[in-house]
Amino acid sequence: MPLSEVELIERYFRALGARRPDVELGVGDDAAVLVVPPGKRLVAAADALVDAIHFPHGTSARSVGHRALAVNLSDMAAMGATPAWAILTLTLPEADEVWLAEFAAGLGKLACEHGVALVGGDTTAGPLTVSLTILGLAASGAYLTRAGAAPGDHVFVSGTPGDAAAGLAILESRLAGGSDAAREELRRRFLFPQPRVELGERLVGIASAAIDVSDGLAGDLEKLARASHCGARIDVDELPLSSALIGCAGRAAARDFALAGGDDYELCFTVAAARLGLLADRVPAARWPYRQIGILTDSGQIEYHSSDPQFRPPAGGYDHFVR
Amino acid sequence: MPLSEVELIERYFRALGARRPDVELGVGDDAAVLVVPPGKRLVAAADALVDAIHFPHGTSARSVGHRALAVNLSDMAAMGATPAWAILTLTLPEADEVWLAEFAAGLGKLACEHGVALVGGDTTAGPLTVSLTILGLAASGAYLTRAGAAPGDHVFVSGTPGDAAAGLAILESRLAGGSDAAREELRRRFLFPQPRVELGERLVGIASAAIDVSDGLAGDLEKLARASHCGARIDVDELPLSSALIGCAGRAAARDFALAGGDDYELCFTVAAARLGLLADRVPAARWPYRQIGILTDSGQIEYHSSDPQFRPPAGGYDHFVR
Repeated sequence: MPLSEVELIERYFRALGARRPDVELGVGDDAAVLVVPPGKRLVAAADALVDAIHFPHGTSARSVGHRALAVNLSDMAAMGATPAWAILTLTLPEADEVWLAEFAAGLGKLACEHGVALVGGDTTAGPLTVSLTILGLAASGAYLTRAGAAPGDHVFVSGTPGDAAAGLAILESRLAGGSDAAREELRRRFLFPQPRVELGERLVGIASAAIDVSDGLAGDLEKLARASHCGARIDVDELPLSSALIGCAGRAAARDFALAGGDDYELCFTVAAARLGLLADRVPAARWPYRQIGILTDSGQIEYHSSDPQFRPPAGGYDHFVR
Repeated sequence: MPLSEVELIERYFRALGARRPDVELGVGDDAAVLVVPPGKRLVAAADALVDAIHFPHGTSARSVGHRALAVNLSDMAAMGATPAWAILTLTLPEADEVWLAEFAAGLGKLACEHGVALVGGDTTAGPLTVSLTILGLAASGAYLTRAGAAPGDHVFVSGTPGDAAAGLAILESRLAGGSDAAREELRRRFLFPQPRVELGERLVGIASAAIDVSDGLAGDLEKLARASHCGARIDVDELPLSSALIGCAGRAAARDFALAGGDDYELCFTVAAARLGLLADRVPAARWPYRQIGILTDSGQIEYHSSDPQFRPPAGGYDHFVR
């Protein structure tokens, strides 16, 4: 006997994620009713994952559930907002209970880790597509955008960009080198990215601008620079490349994965010179890893400098409609 | 030269819908920032439309844009909430500018009519799927749910249910009768449903429970009755059937379209006997059409009564996973 839509929601989605007292009405009615505290702003974003576009066909349901939330949490991180509630629309070819249980487990675990409650959504038949809206909170005036930076601000990136793109290349048999352990580490970085929510929250009042790295560091940095009416000078030798990435891809390809790869869900952010002390004090890189990779300029261009004469600047980030 | 994702968003989605002063940051950053007034609750819902599942393949982009918002506005109507902001994730096979312009026009016109601003979202390549999250506002404690009704409450339905399902049947060449004008009217009821937002807002403080009719009146009434721990007795002779529907389908099939058809986006609501005077005074049916079709009971069953001995009760509403 196939599972009905009502049973499916009841079984897998009614109690997913954190319990929150600010959910006045959750999954099961025509809409959720949520309490936004006085003085807080509502911060809202949505991202969709499509089978065979955003992940290889056959990717584990646990990873799909994790990533559907992670990519949206990453948008909250980029704003310095605290995620609170998620709304899910799930389109899937059939109500496969094994798949659903794994998907719900992947999404639910990350939701609990970040205190997020699933409060509503929709499930329908169709090609596998997961669309998630994340709703978060920020104090009035206390959030990050792409637009606040100025020439002279230092440019930072968190974590080790390029790992996820290399992990995807391994999953798709496009990258062959490296040890088993390094390959597994890179695969995990694609399948289970860790959004930098806590780092984003801590950067409020310190960073002048931020963006999450989803379409490739070079392309996303360009978006930040353009929104802030700046250029940038990037020191390619300073890119924080993981030893797993260098081990699997070699240093030159590692650089390309880091600049043009995408799917990192790291933060690229800028800090004015006057606030660098505050950054080091309040957000020590030993605890929330990040590294300076350049500086904003008034040139209107993104310039890349490398000690390697073979280096060629990237052509741009990933675009869904221009390939 | 194909349109990039950034250009696509800039051209079709940046300024869509109403201008609202409570949008502190709209389309174009990592997330939107929205102002929820003190004393208001946030009301949130999402519904997805999938090509060839929720509308016939080849349906006009203008209708797809309209319906993507309409089905979500209908959820706000069922809550008695006032819609404010929309977030769109659009997956489409290619960046077809003619299609996009029509889609944006259909969505934008309805958004303006209801004072809704498009504040964010995501566009990606993939099978045509439109997922929309609607965010609305309601005064604290002043909204409708499915769960507030009691035995003895009168059951009402707005508009003329069944029209949209018959319109879909005409579009799919499953229904042949009726005049050209009647057929066109029914097609329009499927392609451009009018969500009953104003009716829903007016029912707050009067109706004991409400649900929007999306999966068929019989199935949705059953959900309301179950959530309110009631049964119901429905007088099938009282169903408000349009003359267009009767003209195209005949009275017996019209009844079936009304009870089991779906896609109406009308409201089914209940009112306690003590509030019927208030209903007639404050929400005159001459202005916001609705009709009583039955009464809630303590039987735990939905019973259908008809003067037609040929009438058979419907088997249930539309379910995406049980067919």
